[in-house]
Amino acid sequence: MLVALGLGPGDSELITVRGARLLRTADKVFVPGEIARRIVLPYVDPELLDFPMTNDEDAITKAMERNSDRIAKYALNGTAVLGILGDPSFFSTYGRLYTILKQRYPSIECTVEPGISSITAFAAKMGVAVNSGLEVSDGSEKACRVLLKVRRPRETVEKLRKEGFKEFVLAERMYMDGEKIYGESDMPEVCDYMSVLFARR
Amino acid sequence: MLVALGLGPGDSELITVRGARLLRTADKVFVPGEIARRIVLPYVDPELLDFPMTNDEDAITKAMERNSDRIAKYALNGTAVLGILGDPSFFSTYGRLYTILKQRYPSIECTVEPGISSITAFAAKMGVAVNSGLEVSDGSEKACRVLLKVRRPRETVEKLRKEGFKEFVLAERMYMDGEKIYGESDMPEVCDYMSVLFARR
Repeated sequence: MLVALGLGPGDSELITVRGARLLRTADKVFVPGEIARRIVLPYVDPELLDFPMTNDEDAITKAMERNSDRIAKYALNGTAVLGILGDPSFFSTYGRLYTILKQRYPSIECTVEPGISSITAFAAKMGVAVNSGLEVSDGSEKACRVLLKVRRPRETVEKLRKEGFKEFVLAERMYMDGEKIYGESDMPEVCDYMSVLFARR
Repeated sequence: MLVALGLGPGDSELITVRGARLLRTADKVFVPGEIARRIVLPYVDPELLDFPMTNDEDAITKAMERNSDRIAKYALNGTAVLGILGDPSFFSTYGRLYTILKQRYPSIECTVEPGISSITAFAAKMGVAVNSGLEVSDGSEKACRVLLKVRRPRETVEKLRKEGFKEFVLAERMYMDGEKIYGESDMPEVCDYMSVLFARR
């Protein structure tokens, strides 16, 4: 199995308790570079993988194939952890690696463990409070929407569909007792206050 | 001192290593309710404070005054930790408490420690990857913008000013070696790839 683990924004103490446990107990830990290496060093001595910063698609694919083979050596019969700066689900190269790893080694189970992302960590560092809607961008178009405190998800999905959104997932009470994940086909009429609706164009 | 500590989305193992340490070493730990209590119980037995879910401004103010007095008892001469679900900087009642605590006890130093927010945690839970811009809302208007990978912050600030933004903060290499925080008056011409620009209308 491969665990893509969010290492947080840069401080070794800002990884999660679960992250520290996974780093200490994994059969092998990989990181994409020196900054990530310094974050995990209090817990484990990792192996560095090469994730080239280039627009050369062929070079990226070749590097991802090499990385997949290296990871598979441990992930096929044990637990490999790949540490990713911030959170692996956001603006990360993990998605690309995942696709190629799954093509070459379809039997390897892959999971994601969240980390503190720079998308939210900045506020604690800057001392600002955010109590209104926000837009997050790295310059790309806004294709996703995250709605908090949605009480009537089916109604909300219908509105979003008219705005051009196509993909919908609802997490109710995530990481808590009574957690449920709903797709478009089983979207409930009403849901708990503790819920997040994700939509993509 | 008072530390407002992000407890993450709901799982006790998804608090940070720093959070676990602060919970274990604080003179007193407060939480706003039963869900937060369950998250911190593996580390400490906290005291519950009353944060009323109401629109009655007078009732909220009175509760915050009572909470401030309770917290001050420990924060004036020691370290009190207030655990907040998710991250204290986002859609949290901590801002309101902070204002009232500072009015009554200006000498108490207050800091924020980030936690994994539901704004990002949902993606790991749902298994979705986000590589484009996103909008986050609880129904309120979009008043804030978070820009990642800003290389020419002074130029970007000028553009945002024309769009009606007024407040700007830049964090360069936050939580890493060489960290710098810039306000509007000292915004640099160029900055590191590892940077977050926050703007508010």
